[in-house]
Amino acid sequence: MKLAYINPNATASMTESILSVARAALPETEIFGLTNFGGPAAIQGKADGDAAIPGLLDLVSRAEAQGAEAIVIGCFDDTGLAEARELASCPVLGIGESSYTMAQLLGLKFSVITSLPVSIPVIESNIREHGFSALCASVRASGLPVLTIDEGAAETIDRIAEEIQAAEREDHASCAILGCAGMAQLAPVLSLRTNMRLIDGVAASGHLASAVCRRFSAKT
Amino acid sequence: MKLAYINPNATASMTESILSVARAALPETEIFGLTNFGGPAAIQGKADGDAAIPGLLDLVSRAEAQGAEAIVIGCFDDTGLAEARELASCPVLGIGESSYTMAQLLGLKFSVITSLPVSIPVIESNIREHGFSALCASVRASGLPVLTIDEGAAETIDRIAEEIQAAEREDHASCAILGCAGMAQLAPVLSLRTNMRLIDGVAASGHLASAVCRRFSAKT
Amino acid sequence: MKLAYINPNATASMTESILSVARAALPETEIFGLTNFGGPAAIQGKADGDAAIPGLLDLVSRAEAQGAEAIVIGCFDDTGLAEARELASCPVLGIGESSYTMAQLLGLKFSVITSLPVSIPVIESNIREHGFSALCASVRASGLPVLTIDEGAAETIDRIAEEIQAAEREDHASCAILGCAGMAQLAPVLSLRTNMRLIDGVAASGHLASAVCRRFSAKT
Amino acid sequence: MKLAYINPNATASMTESILSVARAALPETEIFGLTNFGGPAAIQGKADGDAAIPGLLDLVSRAEAQGAEAIVIGCFDDTGLAEARELASCPVLGIGESSYTMAQLLGLKFSVITSLPVSIPVIESNIREHGFSALCASVRASGLPVLTIDEGAAETIDRIAEEIQAAEREDHASCAILGCAGMAQLAPVLSLRTNMRLIDGVAASGHLASAVCRRFSAKT
Amino acid sequence: MKLAYINPNATASMTESILSVARAALPETEIFGLTNFGGPAAIQGKADGDAAIPGLLDLVSRAEAQGAEAIVIGCFDDTGLAEARELASCPVLGIGESSYTMAQLLGLKFSVITSLPVSIPVIESNIREHGFSALCASVRASGLPVLTIDEGAAETIDRIAEEIQAAEREDHASCAILGCAGMAQLAPVLSLRTNMRLIDGVAASGHLASAVCRRFSAKT
Amino acid sequence: MKLAYINPNATASMTESILSVARAALPETEIFGLTNFGGPAAIQGKADGDAAIPGLLDLVSRAEAQGAEAIVIGCFDDTGLAEARELASCPVLGIGESSYTMAQLLGLKFSVITSLPVSIPVIESNIREHGFSALCASVRASGLPVLTIDEGAAETIDRIAEEIQAAEREDHASCAILGCAGMAQLAPVLSLRTNMRLIDGVAASGHLASAVCRRFSAKT
Repeated sequence: MKLAYINPNATASMTESILSVARAALPETEIFGLTNFGGPAAIQGKADGDAAIPGLLDLVSRAEAQGAEAIVIGCFDDTGLAEARELASCPVLGIGESSYTMAQLLGLKFSVITSLPVSIPVIESNIREHGFSALCASVRASGLPVLTIDEGAAETIDRIAEEIQAAEREDHASCAILGCAGMAQLAPVLSLRTNMRLIDGVAASGHLASAVCRRFSAKT
Repeated sequence: MKLAYINPNATASMTESILSVARAALPETEIFGLTNFGGPAAIQGKADGDAAIPGLLDLVSRAEAQGAEAIVIGCFDDTGLAEARELASCPVLGIGESSYTMAQLLGLKFSVITSLPVSIPVIESNIREHGFSALCASVRASGLPVLTIDEGAAETIDRIAEEIQAAEREDHASCAILGCAGMAQLAPVLSLRTNMRLIDGVAASGHLASAVCRRFSAKT
Repeated sequence: MKLAYINPNATASMTESILSVARAALPETEIFGLTNFGGPAAIQGKADGDAAIPGLLDLVSRAEAQGAEAIVIGCFDDTGLAEARELASCPVLGIGESSYTMAQLLGLKFSVITSLPVSIPVIESNIREHGFSALCASVRASGLPVLTIDEGAAETIDRIAEEIQAAEREDHASCAILGCAGMAQLAPVLSLRTNMRLIDGVAASGHLASAVCRRFSAKT
Repeated sequence: MKLAYINPNATASMTESILSVARAALPETEIFGLTNFGGPAAIQGKADGDAAIPGLLDLVSRAEAQGAEAIVIGCFDDTGLAEARELASCPVLGIGESSYTMAQLLGLKFSVITSLPVSIPVIESNIREHGFSALCASVRASGLPVLTIDEGAAETIDRIAEEIQAAEREDHASCAILGCAGMAQLAPVLSLRTNMRLIDGVAASGHLASAVCRRFSAKT
Repeated sequence: MKLAYINPNATASMTESILSVARAALPETEIFGLTNFGGPAAIQGKADGDAAIPGLLDLVSRAEAQGAEAIVIGCFDDTGLAEARELASCPVLGIGESSYTMAQLLGLKFSVITSLPVSIPVIESNIREHGFSALCASVRASGLPVLTIDEGAAETIDRIAEEIQAAEREDHASCAILGCAGMAQLAPVLSLRTNMRLIDGVAASGHLASAVCRRFSAKT
Repeated sequence: MKLAYINPNATASMTESILSVARAALPETEIFGLTNFGGPAAIQGKADGDAAIPGLLDLVSRAEAQGAEAIVIGCFDDTGLAEARELASCPVLGIGESSYTMAQLLGLKFSVITSLPVSIPVIESNIREHGFSALCASVRASGLPVLTIDEGAAETIDRIAEEIQAAEREDHASCAILGCAGMAQLAPVLSLRTNMRLIDGVAASGHLASAVCRRFSAKT
């Protein structure tokens, strides 16, 4: 399978960190990345998401032209997911939806830990519209900007770990979903620190893309 | 991965036809089957489902004792899925939920084609509770009993093919979900006959079980 | 391995159904198809076969130019097999010969169920010339034209199933070989209906091509 | 796949050399070996073959009890192949028949190079009965006893290489079949020395066993 | 391949974190762990290492009895490596030696970042004795005890990251080797923070064990 | 993984024999070869090695341009290894160093059996510089020129086998390293003849290249 991760924001180092996690999770898959250089530096809130969509859709076409058999949109807000699906002839997955799907297949109540509070309504709306409300314990913001998260400083890890533990303690979540593509690289250390079951959407979307493609590999 | 399919009904030939489809779909996976000999001959409606649960839960324990790393409940009603998840320490998937999940990951509006009308309310309730209503075009009964479907006579294929085409024509579904474990073996011929995208839950659940296990393979 | 299936007839939908079966059988293999648009719509009898050969040989060269490491001729009559082998530098397999080979490796007496009676002498001559007579119980015609078979109607399935059962009952065959590329998609439903061991040459040739290529992968 | 190689003779070092070749050829397969300690030290001629059969059949049952999903009889005479197939419920292959099959799938005229002249009539009879006469250029004896071959001395290699070259020069063979299980380890050096296409049945049978098992993996 | 990681210290949570990293690195390998409950809680310096050896050697025998085809000693000091190799009939690797080997195969000058200063002479002696001195830029201690490292607190990450950067800046290392089994889980976040090429011996030893076993898989 | 073997000498048949061994050892890897047509016909001694380097470095660049993810220098002297590593952005391995590394990971005292005495000082210097002296029992010359070895005559095998046995008897080596790329094809027959553990660097380097690439597959 040839799999494309599209980063809807313009920060190339974030594309790199997404690819690094995806390639470690799927060592046998050919994976390439595309960065939306015309988009905002980070996607924080609905306005940023809307601004990213035109460039993102161009990259969807380019990914297919480069032979992608499945595409993942590498932003937890699932920016432009519906539009990309209409455009593409191959399957398109979002890292948000993939995370919720993993929690649902495991039957686990989940909390999402995201970046800034401005992302909460976008995520809550996605959860509601895609039908995952019954399993959602809470959506919590770490208060950290996306690009700060991607740098992975010690205080960043502390902050996210605290929020994960609060989700367990206060919201009775059984697993925590890392609600930002930049958190994926932190999954091992956060797992070590919190002892919670963590779902990172970058790996989850890759594994689900494999399942979807295997399912329909006989179709031309 | 070692994967168990549990057939909640007492009909061993149906277990065989489930295993046959699952092994063809996942040639590299070790798959074994268990039949709920104390359950009803077929599960048609809520009463049959309830009667099947105690024996089914025994088989969940037995499957884990035999080394299952994931378990699929091989009845489209997802009979006892919640209870089995509480009991098991490995992931448990249902073929109904797996089918809806595949449609969702593909972004396709679906119709379910099931056996007798008595199964419609069970399936509709599952779709509602698990949050897949937004993508559901319809749930249609073929009017055929489960064990008749499993025999795969020519009229059976005709009947199901007609219902699939009606779902496309009348309900504007983009894909059809085969709403009975016994239909899985008919997927190739139904695909040939109807030209619709079909999802059979037996293969879908196997592929999703792989994804779930890969995701958490690092966890002990 | 990169594997090409060449359909010697001009019916593109039949190429599609061959590819669909082959890809399901060999999910890890890169498979592509070529249609002999200059050939007859279906190959029924020796005259059709002869007419198909020039275009078929062009496609053999094209398949190698596109990187095929093995080629399968997707017609049960093994049309042009000897000529293709002389031309190609990679291994070339036929779905007829592959089917007989599978029966022989399993030590099973076989009946072939083909399309029209006009194909019987071609097939019988192949069996004789390639040395499989000792295991051949019978060659039977379903009376159905190739393109009718490829449509997979209910009566088609009934007709072929009857013939398979007659082969078991009257000719004491231990397995049935599906003697037409268009029957491969029907294999699961026919297996369900007849309970006979079935061999479809589309899958068989793919698996044997793998074995042949693995055997000589060290040779350049 | 779990694959058993049964050595019908009593020489354990020969079982080891067979296993060594098989494991190198199929690195991803679980392979085990059984030695027929009650049989003759080497099988040279029909009397030796007949004496080996009772113990060989016991080992077939033992191999299945140990979980073999396919069995290879590791003697080029295909000693007891028909009897073993009747007894076993899994596929049974012979290294002789597997070698002829590979030549046939490649469309190559073959010569067999065997050990002592006493083996020639056994091999010729197998070729005739299994229908491979049309492709057989010759069966030649190296004049070397089986256990001498298995020791792999320099003169042994010289002797076999000469015979291979004579088969090409005098009998116009396009490939040479190594007609003794003990020659399999010599295949790389003989290939280097003769520049002929060589088929060793130990590797060939392993690859064909994979193909046969993949073909019927969906059947229980 | 069945691979055993033996933790020579008595801290079971550390065995878990080693297994977690190893399973993520080798998703297709069967991996199990053994904890040396009779050993010291952590191995810090030569005395701890010596105290761990008798229990460690018992576990080597147990690992082989449980079917291990290769064994990794999960302590960076390569405690008891020579003794274990004498005892075992399967290959035994150390995470220290595996790390140095990776650096050597990549041709990179390395610094080791370890736990307490007391471990420096042990590591330096290993590097000298095993012939890796030419590539060693430095061995540096983070000053953190092994069990503190395994908890992965924010200051721990800061401390190790600083030391890695100092190795690059002051010792001109081209890669950093994580000199404690407990650091392996921190590799992704440290890689993110330092932008240095990092080698963790837990993954490295698993990959090298695969290479060693593949190399000799044909030997019995 | 796409892996290139560069033959630093100008003898194309030797490139073929290297590729043949490598492809048999790594059946699942895409392997291609490049011949240094401007180099000496064989590399025997330091002067030949020096003459080969400029053309070799051109081929390193060409291999990367053709998509190589790892490169092996197919001469036991590890000609130009350091220079190639500086030039290439992918890992570069030598068959000499890979052989010593395998012996070290197995903890085995080794003897190298090479071609002419003129190669002994080159090999001894490599062993000393790369830190493998502690495990080296001896470096012995067979007295055979490289191109004679590659032809694999009976006396060649005798000669090398005698030298291997002398290494065991006189130098107390626990394994023998085949110290010339042309000996790799002889490994099975030499193993059969001598009963020593043999390491051939062509296979060893391929397996280690896999390990190195897996280790850093997540890095871009």
